[in-house]
Amino acid sequence: MAVHKIGLVGAGRMGSLHAGNAVTNPRLELAWVADHDTAAASRLADHSGARATDYETILADPTVEGVIVASSTSSHLENVLAAVRAGKAVFCEKPLSLDADTLAAALPEIEASGSPVFIAFNRRFDPHLTALKRKLDAGEVGHAETLHIINHDPATPRIDFIPRSGGLFKDFTIHDFDTAAWLLEESFVEIFAAGACLIDPQIGKLGDIDTAKVVLRSSRGVLCMISNSRRTGYGYDQRVELFGSDGALRVDNEHRQNVSRLMESGEALAPFPFSFAERYAEAYIAELDHFSDVLEAGSRPSTGPRDSLRALRLADAAEQSVRNNAPVRLNPEEMR
Amino acid sequence: MAVHKIGLVGAGRMGSLHAGNAVTNPRLELAWVADHDTAAASRLADHSGARATDYETILADPTVEGVIVASSTSSHLENVLAAVRAGKAVFCEKPLSLDADTLAAALPEIEASGSPVFIAFNRRFDPHLTALKRKLDAGEVGHAETLHIINHDPATPRIDFIPRSGGLFKDFTIHDFDTAAWLLEESFVEIFAAGACLIDPQIGKLGDIDTAKVVLRSSRGVLCMISNSRRTGYGYDQRVELFGSDGALRVDNEHRQNVSRLMESGEALAPFPFSFAERYAEAYIAELDHFSDVLEAGSRPSTGPRDSLRALRLADAAEQSVRNNAPVRLNPEEMR
Amino acid sequence: MAVHKIGLVGAGRMGSLHAGNAVTNPRLELAWVADHDTAAASRLADHSGARATDYETILADPTVEGVIVASSTSSHLENVLAAVRAGKAVFCEKPLSLDADTLAAALPEIEASGSPVFIAFNRRFDPHLTALKRKLDAGEVGHAETLHIINHDPATPRIDFIPRSGGLFKDFTIHDFDTAAWLLEESFVEIFAAGACLIDPQIGKLGDIDTAKVVLRSSRGVLCMISNSRRTGYGYDQRVELFGSDGALRVDNEHRQNVSRLMESGEALAPFPFSFAERYAEAYIAELDHFSDVLEAGSRPSTGPRDSLRALRLADAAEQSVRNNAPVRLNPEEMR
Amino acid sequence: MAVHKIGLVGAGRMGSLHAGNAVTNPRLELAWVADHDTAAASRLADHSGARATDYETILADPTVEGVIVASSTSSHLENVLAAVRAGKAVFCEKPLSLDADTLAAALPEIEASGSPVFIAFNRRFDPHLTALKRKLDAGEVGHAETLHIINHDPATPRIDFIPRSGGLFKDFTIHDFDTAAWLLEESFVEIFAAGACLIDPQIGKLGDIDTAKVVLRSSRGVLCMISNSRRTGYGYDQRVELFGSDGALRVDNEHRQNVSRLMESGEALAPFPFSFAERYAEAYIAELDHFSDVLEAGSRPSTGPRDSLRALRLADAAEQSVRNNAPVRLNPEEMR
Repeated sequence: MAVHKIGLVGAGRMGSLHAGNAVTNPRLELAWVADHDTAAASRLADHSGARATDYETILADPTVEGVIVASSTSSHLENVLAAVRAGKAVFCEKPLSLDADTLAAALPEIEASGSPVFIAFNRRFDPHLTALKRKLDAGEVGHAETLHIINHDPATPRIDFIPRSGGLFKDFTIHDFDTAAWLLEESFVEIFAAGACLIDPQIGKLGDIDTAKVVLRSSRGVLCMISNSRRTGYGYDQRVELFGSDGALRVDNEHRQNVSRLMESGEALAPFPFSFAERYAEAYIAELDHFSDVLEAGSRPSTGPRDSLRALRLADAAEQSVRNNAPVRLNPEEMR
Repeated sequence: MAVHKIGLVGAGRMGSLHAGNAVTNPRLELAWVADHDTAAASRLADHSGARATDYETILADPTVEGVIVASSTSSHLENVLAAVRAGKAVFCEKPLSLDADTLAAALPEIEASGSPVFIAFNRRFDPHLTALKRKLDAGEVGHAETLHIINHDPATPRIDFIPRSGGLFKDFTIHDFDTAAWLLEESFVEIFAAGACLIDPQIGKLGDIDTAKVVLRSSRGVLCMISNSRRTGYGYDQRVELFGSDGALRVDNEHRQNVSRLMESGEALAPFPFSFAERYAEAYIAELDHFSDVLEAGSRPSTGPRDSLRALRLADAAEQSVRNNAPVRLNPEEMR
Repeated sequence: MAVHKIGLVGAGRMGSLHAGNAVTNPRLELAWVADHDTAAASRLADHSGARATDYETILADPTVEGVIVASSTSSHLENVLAAVRAGKAVFCEKPLSLDADTLAAALPEIEASGSPVFIAFNRRFDPHLTALKRKLDAGEVGHAETLHIINHDPATPRIDFIPRSGGLFKDFTIHDFDTAAWLLEESFVEIFAAGACLIDPQIGKLGDIDTAKVVLRSSRGVLCMISNSRRTGYGYDQRVELFGSDGALRVDNEHRQNVSRLMESGEALAPFPFSFAERYAEAYIAELDHFSDVLEAGSRPSTGPRDSLRALRLADAAEQSVRNNAPVRLNPEEMR
Repeated sequence: MAVHKIGLVGAGRMGSLHAGNAVTNPRLELAWVADHDTAAASRLADHSGARATDYETILADPTVEGVIVASSTSSHLENVLAAVRAGKAVFCEKPLSLDADTLAAALPEIEASGSPVFIAFNRRFDPHLTALKRKLDAGEVGHAETLHIINHDPATPRIDFIPRSGGLFKDFTIHDFDTAAWLLEESFVEIFAAGACLIDPQIGKLGDIDTAKVVLRSSRGVLCMISNSRRTGYGYDQRVELFGSDGALRVDNEHRQNVSRLMESGEALAPFPFSFAERYAEAYIAELDHFSDVLEAGSRPSTGPRDSLRALRLADAAEQSVRNNAPVRLNPEEMR
């Protein structure tokens, strides 16, 4: 078993999570950690058996095969470009960028570089969703007719995150846009989005929404409904249902464990996961496994910058739909 | 316990179902059955311990307190008007009419008559939905933020039914419009509907659709999503989820019974009901109980002609939304 | 549809329940109600559209085809004997008797009478258990290897019932003995019972137990485990699992309805039924349907006095096993 | 974070599994692997970043703090004794021994050594069972009245394993004996076991059984029922139900994932785990975490040789009960 040396930029929440998984992945050796906050980089490096340095040094190390980009969203694209220029394979946290045109402009260079760039959409690595995808592809329910995605978060983020989040559609629904494209393998032709600020008026004051229902239509007529909420109060509510010509597939919520309590008021099942680290624990591990495969075999990442751009275009169109209160026709060129 | 003498017009599928429940309801005595098809009327009368006659005779019988109108949809309104003119209480199968303006024109006379007119929307009597309603009203999940209704039928109807069905929204979604209004007790201000013909091209040729996703917005901003399909292949898929400010309530599908089989491929739960008679068996019984209460106490029916008209207006607006591919603003006067 | 005239003896809890179902059963006409408590008989008769009288009068009425025996347990056998002497078909609440030898002595006369005698074990008419039975008989899980029956009551009975209950095994486990015999269609050869008084010490003072675990072994080696408790605190817990050579079948508990509430502490399912009238509502209706079939076609009741005797012999053996703290070998003659 | 150097003896199935978990545990460094089959030791060492050697060398290495004993069952006790003599902490696969008297004789030396010896019963580390235990200990269902354990394996083992398995009770039920003791924290006073060979006649020819129902009684009267089967055909069926004075707790089976398929025949849930490695994946990881805690803090292992001996005494008594077809009184001295 070959072991691949990698570096990490970004010692925050996601960086720490990926570092922890890299440490326990026998195919990866996390050698370097970089962050503008050098103290944070040192702490994470210590904790991970790695060394702290700056990003340039990581890229200059010829023994480093790949980098994990988990820095702040605004620096993702710049860090990815630097990495591919240095000939490194890239594992980049979603989103690659919050601006579709900027990303579109950078895409040719990234693709020409020949460096594999993997954009980590965690849904694609969730064992429940991948099982649904396998069953769909195996024809277990005929062809897809409609798709429902419920993506509700446990709690609103800190209010100071909202202005730099990119807005609900780019920060949140972007997962669902990618999930829909991945599951259906169809090109979308139209989108309608209804948004509302029902949870926290402060979000509305910042010009954002916290609740949305989105209807997507594909070129072959498949209808996809997405529901988003920034706060359930009861943990992650993330379900997918695919209605086909010969039956349906549904992914229901996981409970933390399998104990129920029987009492006069009924049967109480266990709580739902409250943190994304818990809800997508297996997905994050699988992401690094996938990145190991990419490093090992030079194989193509299952999601790349183009998928990221498509999801971003859909988010832009959703915003436009809310603004105009009308369906938005999508540009087929941009939906590939 | 007082026993109330009633008559029935319409000896078809719904008439037979209601007759059967009337026979086993100790508070009702089904005395008369009428139908243009006099042989059908006789058969059902024989089976129900009643006598066959014509509708005029039923209305002329001073001992008859109420009538069940289960004739063809196109005659509902006319039969109801005749009944209230004769001073009878009315139990009318939904829909009261397929034409909103006609119904609006008739409403003053119906309401002025003083006769209670109960329009039987079965969802309002389903034990699962009424439990959800009670919990919502008790504040168990705070105030409503969004509502999801899945209403998918087991199989497409006979194709010759389509032209006289009134179209998907009036025949089918009308239940969901009423359910949303009943559960939320809110006035709707806007509707967007996306329709498609994905199941049977013949339905499309007849100018109808078989699949729809509808987004409703209420005056207080609640978003309601409705999903319709004419064919699941696996039975009734009729679920409701209410997302509130302090948790959520969901009604999942009933299985026929509670036996599961454990085998190498997993765990197989029992089938879902395939006929509305089975799926809503308890609701139909409860409808007649409610009608008995109306007859007994002269109390106000829980759903009346005005609810029927509102649902019809929503169906019209949904059609218009599909036609124009745009949200439709609703007339507040018509949404009360 | 023929209507069969019947009488009822016993205007208590079970008598009222059966009277209610007889009233709504279109194939039965409940003509007479008898009870030593003539006021109770009159009330129930009034409520049911029947007339109150004494049992002798019912049996003397040549138009009465059958009687429901729902009097106190101690009079069951005597009332059944009187009915068969009068040539009436019998629907008798379980148990036919609390004394096996007395019942054995009466059996020849009952069987010689030619009158069908149906002993109403409600489990045999539960839609969940009958579905399990159908699947088992259809070979869906190969041949039976072991069977688990959980039969736990919501709450202990009134303490004054205990002395006349016949004891836990005859009052309670007797259902499970009959269920095991019905499902497995095997002859039992040995029984071991462990009993305890864990819930209410008063029950122990009266010489009875409130908790038991029973192991039965059939002639072909099938092992059957029965668990009994007089009090769950959370409603009826009545489950059956059949482990076969090619998979397993399980009947889980019904909830009152299908609404769940999602909240921070997890997902709360609806309560379980707390009364036998609710838990076995469908079974009691089906019992009267079965009795109608017996009256209509003269067909053999699905459970008769011999089944009742076998269950009673098993209860006696269970008591002996507890007394001697040892397995008890069963008499094959008595297990047919 | 301190890293503890450990060695492993036994490069078979369990040894490989623990080695894999040790590699990904950041608190452990697997330095050595030993096995009589030196090729197997080398392969596993290579795969794990460790070195192959013999057991004596591991014990002689002063930098090694603990050893994992995953050799063949017959050598467990000898290897554990050697380890404690060398002053090493021990992680030993269950069972420590198949012979109670031999183990009893060795116990004083083990306990006097001061070396912590952890006997890895995986149920104690299963997240579902530990959640049940927490809820029980928190008083969520009052005090325990009865306990049900279902422990059914997917498939019979290779027939050549049977003679050296120690028999069903020592190989298999031993888990349940330990689980019951752990959950209830009660002393058992009596056991009755009914065994049968229903699955594979070859097992019977070897003098063993493949199916059992066991009833345990504790000093305070709690009744515990254990069900064992060597073959379900549908994967691991391992459930626990605790019936308390104020409700019940149940651990149901995990499905492989959370996707269900809706089809005409009903709803198909995902398969159950078929390998213990999958079913208890989290438990095995947690075992090594616990061992890390023991190494770190010198804390007492949650299960030790005395628990192993108690479970073995129960297995012996179960065998005796089957042999004599009678309950067996347990020696209180041996049940502590």
